Amino acid sequence: MHLTGLVGQEGEMLNMKVMCSENPGYSTLLNYTFLLFIIQQIGLVKVQSVWPLPQTCITSTERYQLKPQTFSFGYRGQLTEQHSCSVLDAAFKRYFSILFPDYPSGNDTLQFTENEVFTLTISLDHHDCEGYPNQDSSERYKLNVFAGRASLNAETVWGALIGLESFSQLVYQDDVGSYYINKTYIEDFPQFKYRGILLDTSRHYLPVPAILKTLDAMAYSKFNVFHWHIVDDPSFPYQSHTFPELSSKGAFHPVTHIYTQSDVRRVISHARMRGIRVLPEFDSPGHTKSWGKGQPVLLTPCYRGGNPSGAFGPVNPTLSSTYQFMAALFKEVATVFPDSYIHLGGDEVDFSCWRSNPYVRAFMQKMGFGLDFSKLEAFYIEKILNITLALRKTSIVWQDVFDYHERRKSLSVVEVWKQGCYLCEVRRVVKAGLRVILASPWYLDQPGPTHNWARYYNVWPLAFKGSEKQKQLVIGGEVCLWGEYVDATNLSPRLWPRASAAAERLWSNEKQTFSVDRAFPRLQEFRCKLLRRGIQVEPLYVGYCKHEYQSV
Amino acid sequence: MHLTGLVGQEGEMLNMKVMCSENPGYSTLLNYTFLLFIIQQIGLVKVQSVWPLPQTCITSTERYQLKPQTFSFGYRGQLTEQHSCSVLDAAFKRYFSILFPDYPSGNDTLQFTENEVFTLTISLDHHDCEGYPNQDSSERYKLNVFAGRASLNAETVWGALIGLESFSQLVYQDDVGSYYINKTYIEDFPQFKYRGILLDTSRHYLPVPAILKTLDAMAYSKFNVFHWHIVDDPSFPYQSHTFPELSSKGAFHPVTHIYTQSDVRRVISHARMRGIRVLPEFDSPGHTKSWGKGQPVLLTPCYRGGNPSGAFGPVNPTLSSTYQFMAALFKEVATVFPDSYIHLGGDEVDFSCWRSNPYVRAFMQKMGFGLDFSKLEAFYIEKILNITLALRKTSIVWQDVFDYHERRKSLSVVEVWKQGCYLCEVRRVVKAGLRVILASPWYLDQPGPTHNWARYYNVWPLAFKGSEKQKQLVIGGEVCLWGEYVDATNLSPRLWPRASAAAERLWSNEKQTFSVDRAFPRLQEFRCKLLRRGIQVEPLYVGYCKHEYQSV
Repeated sequence: MHLTGLVGQEGEMLNMKVMCSENPGYSTLLNYTFLLFIIQQIGLVKVQSVWPLPQTCITSTERYQLKPQTFSFGYRGQLTEQHSCSVLDAAFKRYFSILFPDYPSGNDTLQFTENEVFTLTISLDHHDCEGYPNQDSSERYKLNVFAGRASLNAETVWGALIGLESFSQLVYQDDVGSYYINKTYIEDFPQFKYRGILLDTSRHYLPVPAILKTLDAMAYSKFNVFHWHIVDDPSFPYQSHTFPELSSKGAFHPVTHIYTQSDVRRVISHARMRGIRVLPEFDSPGHTKSWGKGQPVLLTPCYRGGNPSGAFGPVNPTLSSTYQFMAALFKEVATVFPDSYIHLGGDEVDFSCWRSNPYVRAFMQKMGFGLDFSKLEAFYIEKILNITLALRKTSIVWQDVFDYHERRKSLSVVEVWKQGCYLCEVRRVVKAGLRVILASPWYLDQPGPTHNWARYYNVWPLAFKGSEKQKQLVIGGEVCLWGEYVDATNLSPRLWPRASAAAERLWSNEKQTFSVDRAFPRLQEFRCKLLRRGIQVEPLYVGYCKHEYQSV
Repeated sequence: MHLTGLVGQEGEMLNMKVMCSENPGYSTLLNYTFLLFIIQQIGLVKVQSVWPLPQTCITSTERYQLKPQTFSFGYRGQLTEQHSCSVLDAAFKRYFSILFPDYPSGNDTLQFTENEVFTLTISLDHHDCEGYPNQDSSERYKLNVFAGRASLNAETVWGALIGLESFSQLVYQDDVGSYYINKTYIEDFPQFKYRGILLDTSRHYLPVPAILKTLDAMAYSKFNVFHWHIVDDPSFPYQSHTFPELSSKGAFHPVTHIYTQSDVRRVISHARMRGIRVLPEFDSPGHTKSWGKGQPVLLTPCYRGGNPSGAFGPVNPTLSSTYQFMAALFKEVATVFPDSYIHLGGDEVDFSCWRSNPYVRAFMQKMGFGLDFSKLEAFYIEKILNITLALRKTSIVWQDVFDYHERRKSLSVVEVWKQGCYLCEVRRVVKAGLRVILASPWYLDQPGPTHNWARYYNVWPLAFKGSEKQKQLVIGGEVCLWGEYVDATNLSPRLWPRASAAAERLWSNEKQTFSVDRAFPRLQEFRCKLLRRGIQVEPLYVGYCKHEYQSV
């Protein structure tokens, strides 16, 4: 079990059906065991699996050869060569290289007969290639590989991208390097619509190529939201065209450590081409120290002994200039980032500076907040919520806001991040009728032994008492890779393969994916595929892949 | 403190002397503080530090410009252009690129005057360029940068390499990219002669480029021994010319996952050019499962219910064929690896299989060992020690051997690896008159928060009660990067910068390097230098380097 040996052991196949998941939930356990017994006796079968596991996947040992010279992608239905889809055209190029990593190998010849041609034909129910993926985008697809050809149908282009990824994982090479795919039928859709990864570009600056590479890897595991925690206390790398001093004074370096408008467009475009939404977070009123460098009156001056101490606290919620600034900033952000969601943060606000400031205290008095600073914070967040509402954005806030906010009905989506009984919090949020994103169990920035991937796999976001309707309010989950100890040097191995474990939890049916033991060899195999695609994925345990990561 | 901001903040310098270490042990604390006060008021000084800290290092704010077009390395004394040194010639090429990372930059001109020429002149007391570094090689050097030139004197070529590394760390760029070095005087030698890093190529195969890259990084931190734990239970990647089946049957893959003789020569040569010894370990009698695949009678057949169970245990110590095989294997190994040390392993032998085997028990009876299997193990190790003694190699064994061995006088060097009171064990070993290598506190394969580098810095190998002579028996220490969860995908960030913390403990004077707080900014700066050299070094904490790691 520990020694993989899985890769590169293809051979002749028996013509029989096997579940892609090797899951007795579909056939009977007896049949399954008997099948495996026969297979193991002959010692030849290798069924390619798809990670994360599709909802339905039936595969056979009947297989078809694929040749790079004669393989093609085709359109059908609304899509034609004349009325094609730029997102898919680009995806075909990417996946051709992924399907045939050894091509061109040098001794290829172009002699072939008609029946050696293998075509993957794609049809879409909606021709939506010009837009962006959004929270309601269907990702459902059907993939049918049979009789020497394949067809992929999806409701949207985003579903087609997911189907292409599944198709690519089904293709394998035998010992002499020939490519094959087995007869396979897949019907698939995600368990949760929101499957995110948070990167933090404030505590360390991540060069754009590191972000793009992460987006590539996200697509392989079918993550569909890049939560960009773009600014925070240590640095403000977002180059605003409305307020250029925010980055020229607040970034680690005003030229080399910023994201220009063009960088941001590049990230959004790269993500869109892979069916990934980009969700920007401009966290306030706390976590804003770097904002103060380029926007001097924004932060609250802290007092000591009756005088300003020179230190600054959270955003100053008592000044109208604050809200003018925020409205202008969010107006820009709402335009730059096309997603209909926006993350407002709202976590971990330290009240001590507000408390020290006599003007803040006077404002509290005037407003009738007494000494309850959480009321001041709620007042502030309410103002910001109104700004983003006017911009027609759906706001996400960290759970802190839900916890202290009295007017909960103005909230939309709450992200649960605190440790402890996180499902208790999930339950409280859905009981209030709000949507939930669960992050608590997937804080991957703290390193741990790699084999604790199981800890991220064994998460059950719906395991709380609640109605079906309440459970539907749990829209998904998110892996958070905070930046205190992470930058481009260790981002990939810290994230992968542990984030892939979370990906299967968020995509697949939990009744088919409850077993860590069954998942282990599939995850090993998936890891080898990712290495072949150049993703720096840590090992799960002792073993090897046919193609190791080439570090240099 | 947390935000580096150190890099790229050069400016005009005051002409005053500062300790490289900023260590009050040399000047008084008062003077030091006063100096720093003045420097900080002017806000301009940047003294480059050397990691690991030299024994003596005095630097001044007087600085000289270095231009790639007019910089040169030169020989003096026994070394001349005619009678040059291949190791140094190659080092000059490497270090030229390291010194001038932006060269060629495009708009360089070759107009210069005589006084812009900067030469680093090297002299050696012994012209030993054709050999290999060994345990007794002096690494002492003196480096003097003054009056627009530099001279480096060393007893051996290996000391000169160390001096070159120090020189390279002293060079910095100002904001417009010009190169400078400050007037500096260094006298330096290592605290411990043995400063090793263990890589495990059995649990995961490490491609040769990953090993070479690690050797590069080792040289930057002045490690001088690559302990190559080349084979173990999971795989036998060493391709023996005497016993080719060991790897053809025992490697993960007989072609792609092996080290050929040419690979091994390449590793040894790459290491030698950087003053690094290659210490091979062929661990036995335990940790040998993979050996059994290519050498069928070598391992002990385990019994269950009076019959062989099909499983195999440690090497079979009862057969003379075992020792014939071992003698032939070690004869080859002794030739392939030029170092005078060899590591015999000897750790973690499980007695249960020996105990189950009736022939082993009968042998025990005959030899009068009773039921004491440690006597059987000692019998085996004694035989192996005699084999390597005949090959004129100095044997290292893991502490297990010392712990059970009665004839301790046949041992030479003991490597202490177990956790707990490791200094108690060190003391026991030196009291027995044997040499010690300390590994226990430096097991880096298990991940931990990066900032626990301090745990690897705060190690005091000599903090036990013992005579001066006994303390001299502690020849050094070793960072162990076992391979269960490590391969080429995560080797570098798992190793660095934590191994660099250990490196300073092993090189520098502990009286000058007792403070984690003082080390922190120096280690931050060193990390940035390593990133610039392309080493994938994890961050220590929030912050940035002028040149971040370019991941793609």
